[in-house]
Amino acid sequence: MAADQLLLSAVSLISALQLGYLARCVGRSRLKHNISPPTTTGHAEFERTFRAQWFSAYDRDPFSHPSQNCVEAYLPFLVTLWVSGLFFHEGLAALGGLVFIFARQMYFNGYVTSAKNRLPGFYLTLAAWLTLAALGTVGILHHLLDEYLDINLRKMLFKS
Amino acid sequence: MAADQLLLSAVSLISALQLGYLARCVGRSRLKHNISPPTTTGHAEFERTFRAQWFSAYDRDPFSHPSQNCVEAYLPFLVTLWVSGLFFHEGLAALGGLVFIFARQMYFNGYVTSAKNRLPGFYLTLAAWLTLAALGTVGILHHLLDEYLDINLRKMLFKS
Amino acid sequence: MAADQLLLSAVSLISALQLGYLARCVGRSRLKHNISPPTTTGHAEFERTFRAQWFSAYDRDPFSHPSQNCVEAYLPFLVTLWVSGLFFHEGLAALGGLVFIFARQMYFNGYVTSAKNRLPGFYLTLAAWLTLAALGTVGILHHLLDEYLDINLRKMLFKS
Repeated sequence: MAADQLLLSAVSLISALQLGYLARCVGRSRLKHNISPPTTTGHAEFERTFRAQWFSAYDRDPFSHPSQNCVEAYLPFLVTLWVSGLFFHEGLAALGGLVFIFARQMYFNGYVTSAKNRLPGFYLTLAAWLTLAALGTVGILHHLLDEYLDINLRKMLFKS
Repeated sequence: MAADQLLLSAVSLISALQLGYLARCVGRSRLKHNISPPTTTGHAEFERTFRAQWFSAYDRDPFSHPSQNCVEAYLPFLVTLWVSGLFFHEGLAALGGLVFIFARQMYFNGYVTSAKNRLPGFYLTLAAWLTLAALGTVGILHHLLDEYLDINLRKMLFKS
Repeated sequence: MAADQLLLSAVSLISALQLGYLARCVGRSRLKHNISPPTTTGHAEFERTFRAQWFSAYDRDPFSHPSQNCVEAYLPFLVTLWVSGLFFHEGLAALGGLVFIFARQMYFNGYVTSAKNRLPGFYLTLAAWLTLAALGTVGILHHLLDEYLDINLRKMLFKS
């Protein structure tokens, strides 16, 4: 049974490892610039690294508070990844998940060099998430209509 | 197989979309009152909107730090939703989940108007979460006792 | 079907309840020392309690910003718990999860008494997480190779 969601599980694991990796990057940057917490400022490169760890749907400003993003990024990502994978298409969802993880790394790497360089990663992350959310919504609606109202969307659209 | 947890998946997806929606509300309020991060203060309505995005089990004060709540609200919610749905009753758990999501929106909408108006939503959210946690605990205990000690609680309570 | 992942579900539920419990501890400490949010300082014991609620992979300093940790601790924990449980060994993963939860409580309790006392719990938590991540990675690789490249690692290592 476990192997059924092999791809989704693999992508989830990669995203968990990425979170651990990003945490290490911030820790190392702290040591490098000798910035003790709770100070989260003091050197421009560290500040960007620190903020880049976080991703915010409304982080259109380089000085956005990093802590707002914890649930806004990974938890909705994991939920939409699994829902779209289970109810729409596993391979497509896994691909979307990999794009999300790649985009988030782009965002992080771009942010560390300069605040403006994070924008391509930001928009790609948002696009990947919205795609997963859309696929998941379609998949869930399809199954709900089929299960409770006996309406088969796929048939209505493609075979009538 | 996927369709087995259709209701739980639907409720999870709604909660993920809600998180995205709340993030947008804060972002729009920022633009409206022209408050650039990292400033999270400057206009009373924005401050409430910002804080309302977060939910804290111990947020009995309007000025509670918003970032404490990321894992305290949605992650425990999703875990108890699924555990109570899988081990107690899926429909009941999905209903509890919908109440939680509705209560959280109530909390958010109330908070935006005034700090005191968030309290009804706060208590309803807490009640929904405690209900899910209790159902999940009962369900897990029932299955653990049945599996490892061969004790069937349901039989003992209702059929003896 | 639900009973298949009974142990993983039980450990997940315990971790969710622990998060709720830790939130209450901070809330009570706030009342005890009469510290209203957003102030998160004012009394040494409260400050430690507040920070101890959070766990950070790079929290090597007693004054680390607590909010950085939301996704760094529980979300990666739950993902690695489930992936290692589904693709490596459920009992082993559940045991690792219990060690993680115990270590986190050790970290919290130690931190409340003094900043240095949190270190044993910190290292144990890290060790438990890395173990789960390693088991999950091995399990996923094993299944991916078997599924897509028809390479059976277990056979190659133990039966050739």
